Amino acid sequence: MLTKTSVDVSLRALRTLRLLVLVSLCVFISVSAASSPAQEGDDTEKKAEESHRQDSADLLIFILLLTLTILTIWLFKHRRFRFLHETGLAMIYGLIVGVILRYAVQVPRDTNVVPTGCFVNASPATLLVNVSGKLYEYTLKGEISSNEVNDLKDNEMLRKVTFDPEVFFNILLPPIIFHAGYSLKRRHFFRNMGSILAYAFVGTVISCFIIGLLMYGCVTLMKHLGQLGGDFFFTDCLFFGAIVSATDPVTVLAIFHELQVDVDLYALLFGESVLNDAVAVVLSSSIVAYQPQGDNSHTFEAMALLKSLGMFLGVFSGSFSLGVATGIVTALISFLFTKLRDFQLLETALFFLMSWSTFLLAEACGFTGVVAVLFCGITQAHYTFNNLSPESQDRTKQLFELLNFLAENFIFSYMGLTLFTFQNHVFNPMFIVGAFLAVFVGRAANIYPLSLLLNLGRFNKIRSNFQHMMMFAGLRGAMTFALSIRDTATYARQMMFSTNLLVVFFTVWVCGGGTTQMLSCQRIRVGVDSDQENSMSFADGSERRSTKQESAWLFRIWYNFDHNYLKPILTHSGPPLTTTLPPCCGPLARFLTSPQAYENECQLKDDDSDLILTDGDISLTYGDITVSTDATGARTSGGLATDDLDRELAYGDHELVMRGTRLVLPMDDSEPPFTDHLRM
Amino acid sequence: MLTKTSVDVSLRALRTLRLLVLVSLCVFISVSAASSPAQEGDDTEKKAEESHRQDSADLLIFILLLTLTILTIWLFKHRRFRFLHETGLAMIYGLIVGVILRYAVQVPRDTNVVPTGCFVNASPATLLVNVSGKLYEYTLKGEISSNEVNDLKDNEMLRKVTFDPEVFFNILLPPIIFHAGYSLKRRHFFRNMGSILAYAFVGTVISCFIIGLLMYGCVTLMKHLGQLGGDFFFTDCLFFGAIVSATDPVTVLAIFHELQVDVDLYALLFGESVLNDAVAVVLSSSIVAYQPQGDNSHTFEAMALLKSLGMFLGVFSGSFSLGVATGIVTALISFLFTKLRDFQLLETALFFLMSWSTFLLAEACGFTGVVAVLFCGITQAHYTFNNLSPESQDRTKQLFELLNFLAENFIFSYMGLTLFTFQNHVFNPMFIVGAFLAVFVGRAANIYPLSLLLNLGRFNKIRSNFQHMMMFAGLRGAMTFALSIRDTATYARQMMFSTNLLVVFFTVWVCGGGTTQMLSCQRIRVGVDSDQENSMSFADGSERRSTKQESAWLFRIWYNFDHNYLKPILTHSGPPLTTTLPPCCGPLARFLTSPQAYENECQLKDDDSDLILTDGDISLTYGDITVSTDATGARTSGGLATDDLDRELAYGDHELVMRGTRLVLPMDDSEPPFTDHLRM
Repeated sequence: MLTKTSVDVSLRALRTLRLLVLVSLCVFISVSAASSPAQEGDDTEKKAEESHRQDSADLLIFILLLTLTILTIWLFKHRRFRFLHETGLAMIYGLIVGVILRYAVQVPRDTNVVPTGCFVNASPATLLVNVSGKLYEYTLKGEISSNEVNDLKDNEMLRKVTFDPEVFFNILLPPIIFHAGYSLKRRHFFRNMGSILAYAFVGTVISCFIIGLLMYGCVTLMKHLGQLGGDFFFTDCLFFGAIVSATDPVTVLAIFHELQVDVDLYALLFGESVLNDAVAVVLSSSIVAYQPQGDNSHTFEAMALLKSLGMFLGVFSGSFSLGVATGIVTALISFLFTKLRDFQLLETALFFLMSWSTFLLAEACGFTGVVAVLFCGITQAHYTFNNLSPESQDRTKQLFELLNFLAENFIFSYMGLTLFTFQNHVFNPMFIVGAFLAVFVGRAANIYPLSLLLNLGRFNKIRSNFQHMMMFAGLRGAMTFALSIRDTATYARQMMFSTNLLVVFFTVWVCGGGTTQMLSCQRIRVGVDSDQENSMSFADGSERRSTKQESAWLFRIWYNFDHNYLKPILTHSGPPLTTTLPPCCGPLARFLTSPQAYENECQLKDDDSDLILTDGDISLTYGDITVSTDATGARTSGGLATDDLDRELAYGDHELVMRGTRLVLPMDDSEPPFTDHLRM
Repeated sequence: MLTKTSVDVSLRALRTLRLLVLVSLCVFISVSAASSPAQEGDDTEKKAEESHRQDSADLLIFILLLTLTILTIWLFKHRRFRFLHETGLAMIYGLIVGVILRYAVQVPRDTNVVPTGCFVNASPATLLVNVSGKLYEYTLKGEISSNEVNDLKDNEMLRKVTFDPEVFFNILLPPIIFHAGYSLKRRHFFRNMGSILAYAFVGTVISCFIIGLLMYGCVTLMKHLGQLGGDFFFTDCLFFGAIVSATDPVTVLAIFHELQVDVDLYALLFGESVLNDAVAVVLSSSIVAYQPQGDNSHTFEAMALLKSLGMFLGVFSGSFSLGVATGIVTALISFLFTKLRDFQLLETALFFLMSWSTFLLAEACGFTGVVAVLFCGITQAHYTFNNLSPESQDRTKQLFELLNFLAENFIFSYMGLTLFTFQNHVFNPMFIVGAFLAVFVGRAANIYPLSLLLNLGRFNKIRSNFQHMMMFAGLRGAMTFALSIRDTATYARQMMFSTNLLVVFFTVWVCGGGTTQMLSCQRIRVGVDSDQENSMSFADGSERRSTKQESAWLFRIWYNFDHNYLKPILTHSGPPLTTTLPPCCGPLARFLTSPQAYENECQLKDDDSDLILTDGDISLTYGDITVSTDATGARTSGGLATDDLDRELAYGDHELVMRGTRLVLPMDDSEPPFTDHLRM
């Protein structure tokens, strides 16, 4: 009975979906036909109105596309199809609409584009044009190449559905990147911090240069064969390497989350993909900034290289500090204005505004907004999140989840659309084959050698099947697209853009679709509960010891500093500063310590317990330090001595459970900010 | 101890706030100074970058303004200051920053604005300009009057913080208006539907024409006295009347909600303000569309008047139908795709996208987006809301609450700012005095005569103190501002804009601030619980009967149709169609009825119970019809006969409680979508 009902509903839903596809396509076509530029009036107001209607219709196309994607993906989820992720589906729908726009919709030749014959000796931002006695204001949109002029006049419709590339950087990417930072699974991220940083920084740079060199070879060969239709310098190749090095395995991570794949593998992949986006953005802008002085601007010059390197370091560290700073300011505000918790709307609004202002501040200062936003997200998740009321925690989670979902699917459906509507594609088979090879080799040169080196230092080795999986999961996505659409003025950039589109399509559909097969082929454990995994590692003495040692040099320093000083200053958790600061700083410590810290002292309310509690050996150890620094605690173990660490580890499962019952609070403060159920 | 801590925290917060004000002002000034246009390069890319940095800095100013507003308003709420609402505060901060921008920030004379000497014989949407061999693309921004040209060159900074007026209509107003529709307290709205419609439609038109006529008198006088610096036609006066008739008593409603003022008064005011926004938008665009043919375009012409009238009716009904249609489509989707409830993110995203597409569709079809969005919101609240999962109900509520909060405060802080940064203010003392008088008289001519007429039909009279309160609560806000900033090209429009700003400031600060005093002065009951109020009306037999009769003609028909046909088709509540449709429609009814309707039949799961349950006599009566249509119900009363109605009324309090225990479900489906706690 119940099954019958469910099948009935499914069938009906499917039928409705089909109907909806038809209806929405009809609506969209009629709308776009109806709102094609009117021929009649020369009136400016009418033109502005027409233009506004056209804009609305264009945006409506995307909204309907997203709606369709949502309905279809629901069907897929409902039937547990895992071969196609929502982003892949969004691309397919985008492609279909792109084909329709390109071939099915006939738009009259546009009369709205007029080249002026007159000569101006500069390109001002604002131009005033005198049209039969009336002044009109024009704003600069950008330089345009002569071959674009014909396209311009040819198809207004296709031009109209082409968004300003800056939309991606200023509106769509920030929520995606912030959400990535905010939803970083902190405990596993910090446990693998060294490896993640290596993959993200060293790996991306390796990948960038390998791809750049290979592409330079490819381009040189093409030039010899006469296949190249324009300039393609070495810096262009490096630029290509930088933008195509930003991985974005949303599809893979969604399946990982659904199947509960090994948490370390998840953390490595997610952490790498989040951070290498940031590296790729700054790297690509540094490469663009490489401009040797003198006549031949494409030769090697040490000075210019140093300048680029300096710029890379400056912009990256600047964006990083700015992001962290805003995160800390937000944490401080939410820490001081404790009564703000009573007004969740104000709290959520404040959180949203402060996070947004990070982006704007970074952009206004000449840093990179998305990088700042990423680190702001991580900081917010680590500090501010603990100060928020439980309701605001939910609200902020859900808000950024929604924004991320919408922005991501919008970008991917736009990608599909743009394959047909973009006017200046340069598809060169040789370049494309070369690029696919280079991307493959570049990824391999990132993962395998680095894993080898990391395994020398890691006791908890990155096994070869993990390495293969990471190699396979090198999907390209939103960031690569946004970086390549940003500038499509030259021949080289156009070829890159077209090739990148194909790389994204291929990796999302083929690699993304094959994730489940790859997982079973590589015999990677699925259905791993992170808690369970911890108790398993307890059973294996050697592994336990290794994790401890691995984390020791980086994690230990950071954790101590964070736990003893930052957490108490920025959140209501952690030990009172009076117990952690040296006695000479007594007055300062008393001033800085929140009254609640004393109140909570007995309860040991550490909202960081998610990082401590279920996190196996090392975290357990540090969790204990929390106890030992707590003056009223009953435990006697003190300090950081290795003996204590080892003794701690011997407690094992039982201790974990005991501690769990002691530390867990009625609030859900202690949850990690996102459980990524959005990607289910 | 607790009080001391609280005071401590308050003091510390206050100190931080002061610090923050300083810091943010410094940041903003340094940012705006740093990002003032660079003098050096002629390079287009650099210019675009500069422009982007400047844009970011400008937006940052507003974000910081909003942040400050939030922190300050938190202090006010915390200390229960009611004399200043967040919108009023946002205006004050806006004013302060406006003064700083205007007088304190020195920006070098801009070299980016260049008038071309060349002559073009049309004003195309896109202009290509040949600058020393390179082509640059320019897009049309609009016509500009000659006196603006100097301002243009004078202060790029001030121009930059001036947003495109269409931003208000396309980005900021839609969420505000949708939220108003979505949070309409339905039961009290429907109970007073007749009166609300009268105030909103008849009242707004009366107010528009009264103000228009008075202003025409004022303008004629000014012309005689030589005080008028440009043309000011009768249509301009009417236009002024239309845009200034849109009331927006956010401040008053917030206080009403906080003090739990009489629900009927609340419903009347809120309902009127929501609907008269829609009327004012369409009315003003119809007045603009009034263009008699022939030479003298400002004389009376019956044909043109009829055309305007037709346009008013067409656009209004078109927008209305479109909004309702999209709402119904969303309800149908959420009704059919029941399993969507398992994926709250998809559900929320779908809801958001469908609501947004209403706006875009209306704009693309040439209707009015905000009107469509309003009715879409009401439909969503009435039908779709019931089909959503409880989590999605919360999510959508919170999302639109947040968007509304941000948009509203943004508009009000922009209003404050623009008093100083807008370049073409025309402050004419005589016009301003005339406008204030006209606004006062227009409001009076709306409220008092209509109330008199309505009281003839209403048995539950609108008492004179309610009338005075409604008169007093005629604040002007976001809609008036957005409508008047939309077009500031002519002298008349500039004068209107400046005057409207003053009207908004005065009404928000003075009327909004005096609400509490006015309430006590008019002896209007506060602290009224809506349930309690119902039981009170039960005690008074005559009033009970009267409400029944009042609602009879409009509410009864609508309620029956809605309950028997629409609710069962669009939601999982209400009686199965098989019981409400005539027997001849049996197969259709069986096809349309959701399987759940049969399952719920025994439980009588009517999510509309909020409209029924605590709503006093008439709703109780209809609530009973729900029972009688329920085939398995134990009650024997059947049909709509007046005898039954009367018999029902005799049940009184006891019955209400009994029914309450029978009808209330464990879910919070039955809550009205918003309880407006955002305005607390």
